[in-house]
Amino acid sequence: MTESDKTHHAADRLIEACRSKGAPVCVGIDPVLNKLPDSLGGLEPIAAIEKFSLEVIEAVAEHVPAIKPQIACFERYGSEGYAVYERVATAGREAGLFVIGDAKRGDIGTSSAHYASGLLVGEEDSAVGCDALTVNTYLGMDGIEPFFKAAAATGKGLFALVRTSNPGGDKLQGLRLEDGRSVAEAVADQVADLGCGELGSSGYSLLGAVVGATKPEDAVSLRQRMPQQIFLVPGFGAQGGSADDVRACFKPDGTGAIITASRSVIYAYNPADTDWPDAVTQAAIDLKRQIAEILS
Amino acid sequence: MTESDKTHHAADRLIEACRSKGAPVCVGIDPVLNKLPDSLGGLEPIAAIEKFSLEVIEAVAEHVPAIKPQIACFERYGSEGYAVYERVATAGREAGLFVIGDAKRGDIGTSSAHYASGLLVGEEDSAVGCDALTVNTYLGMDGIEPFFKAAAATGKGLFALVRTSNPGGDKLQGLRLEDGRSVAEAVADQVADLGCGELGSSGYSLLGAVVGATKPEDAVSLRQRMPQQIFLVPGFGAQGGSADDVRACFKPDGTGAIITASRSVIYAYNPADTDWPDAVTQAAIDLKRQIAEILS
Repeated sequence: MTESDKTHHAADRLIEACRSKGAPVCVGIDPVLNKLPDSLGGLEPIAAIEKFSLEVIEAVAEHVPAIKPQIACFERYGSEGYAVYERVATAGREAGLFVIGDAKRGDIGTSSAHYASGLLVGEEDSAVGCDALTVNTYLGMDGIEPFFKAAAATGKGLFALVRTSNPGGDKLQGLRLEDGRSVAEAVADQVADLGCGELGSSGYSLLGAVVGATKPEDAVSLRQRMPQQIFLVPGFGAQGGSADDVRACFKPDGTGAIITASRSVIYAYNPADTDWPDAVTQAAIDLKRQIAEILS
Repeated sequence: MTESDKTHHAADRLIEACRSKGAPVCVGIDPVLNKLPDSLGGLEPIAAIEKFSLEVIEAVAEHVPAIKPQIACFERYGSEGYAVYERVATAGREAGLFVIGDAKRGDIGTSSAHYASGLLVGEEDSAVGCDALTVNTYLGMDGIEPFFKAAAATGKGLFALVRTSNPGGDKLQGLRLEDGRSVAEAVADQVADLGCGELGSSGYSLLGAVVGATKPEDAVSLRQRMPQQIFLVPGFGAQGGSADDVRACFKPDGTGAIITASRSVIYAYNPADTDWPDAVTQAAIDLKRQIAEILS
C-alpha cells in the first residue's frame, strides 16, 4: 500500500470508483464447488475455488468498482482455504478493485483489534488486508470501535450490520422498542453516532452500514437515520430485491449506496460453456445497466 | 473422530467432563505476543503463539474439562495463524479436552453452512473441527439453523451470543422492547425455542448460550427463559464478575453453566519465570477451587 492509499479516505475511494466505472455495484465472490463450470472439474476442490474466483475477478474488473469475497466460502476449507481468500483479496486489489471482505466479524476489545489487524489492515506477518470489512453489531459499539480506530488509521472502511433481509432478521432486527424504534433503527442511530467522527471529503463516513434490499419502508427510515453512511445493499437479484427497494437506499443525488449481487453474476453461465467468463462479464455489465437505469 | 464421539451428545459430553474434572470451568486460550513468557522471546511471533498455546494446554489438561481458543488471536496472523489455531484445537481434543472454538461467526443460509462445515465439523479438506463453536445471533435464528443442523448431525455443540458484559452490549442487548422484554431476553426466547429439538440425556440442548457474568439480575431472568441451555459464562476474574454473578448462571443442582477465564489463568506467571507453566497449572487449580466453592 502506498502512502497515498493510506491517507485517502475509504468512502471517497469507493465513491470515486463507482463514478469511474459508471454504477455503484459490487460483485459478491461466493464460490461454491457444485456450481463451478465443468471445465474446472479436474482440479482439487480448493484449487478449483481459487481458479474460479481469480477468473471471475478478471472477467469483471474492467466493469465494476468493487468485489465482496464471502470469507465463509473459503474458510470452509480451513487454513488452506483461508490462504486462497488472501490470494483472491490480493488479486482484487491488484486489479484496481475496491475489495470488501465479507467477514461479519464481531467481538469485544482486544479480540476485535486482532480481527482488524489481520483481516482489515493486514499489518501482521502473513496477514492480508482489504479495503473494507463487514462487521457484526450485536456486541455493541465498543465492539466496533477497535475496527473503527484501525480503519481510521489506515484509510480503510467498515460496513456494520444494521438490517438484513432474511426472515430471521425480521424477527430480531424488526422488533419494536418501547421508544417506538425498531432494534435496527436503534443500531442505526448508534452506528451514525460512532461514524460521524471520520468523514471523507464526500461527506460520507468510513463506517458504512449493511442494509438488505427487501424492505423499502425500512430503507427510507434507515437512510434518514444514517445520512453519512454508505449502504452496502445485498439482496438485489437472486434474493428478491426490487427496483423500489434499491432506490430507497440512495440519496437523491444517486450516492450513498452500493448494490451487491453474487449468484446472478458469478453463476450466469451454463456449466458446460468453456467460454463461461464471457457470460460473467455480460452479467456484470447487465447488473450495472439495471442499477444505472434505476438511478436515472 | 470415532463413531461414538459422533453420536454422543455435546451437552452430555461437556457435563460429564465437568463432573470428572471436578468443576465447570473453561480456560480461554487468548495468546497475545506482548504477554508471553520471556523464554519464548527468541521465536518468530507465530511460532511463539503456537508454542505458548500448546504449553498452556499441557499445563491445564489434567485439571480442567474445557478450553476456549479465541480465533481472533490466531487470525490476526492470517492463514498461517489460522493454521496454528487448527493445530491448537487439535492438540486440545487430543489431550481429552472439550474444545470450544470462540469464533462468534454469523451469517445466513449457505454462508453459515460453510462456517459450520469448516470450523465446527471440520468435514472439508484441511479443515479442523472442534466440540462447540460460539455463534452470533444478530442475523436471527435462520442464521443459526445451518450451524444447528450441522451440530445435530455430528454430536457437536453451539453457544449463541445472548448477553455480553461490555458497556456497549448493555446499550444494545439491554434495550427494552414494547412488550417489556429486553433485546437479550427476546433473543433468549428464540434460542430456547430453536434449541429444544436437540436435547441430550442430561436434558440440555446442543444449543447453549453465551451469558456474561456481570449482571446477576439478567442472569436470573435468562436462566428462567433458557432452562435447557448450558451457559458459557465469560467475565469471571479479569473482567470483574463476582461470585453472585456466577451463581445466578447455574441451576440449583450446580449444572447449567461453564465459567470461562482467560487472562487470570494463562498469564498467571511472572514473564521472567522459566517454570511459567507451573504458575498456569496452579491458576487453573485455583479457578476450579473458586468455582467449586461458589457452587458448594
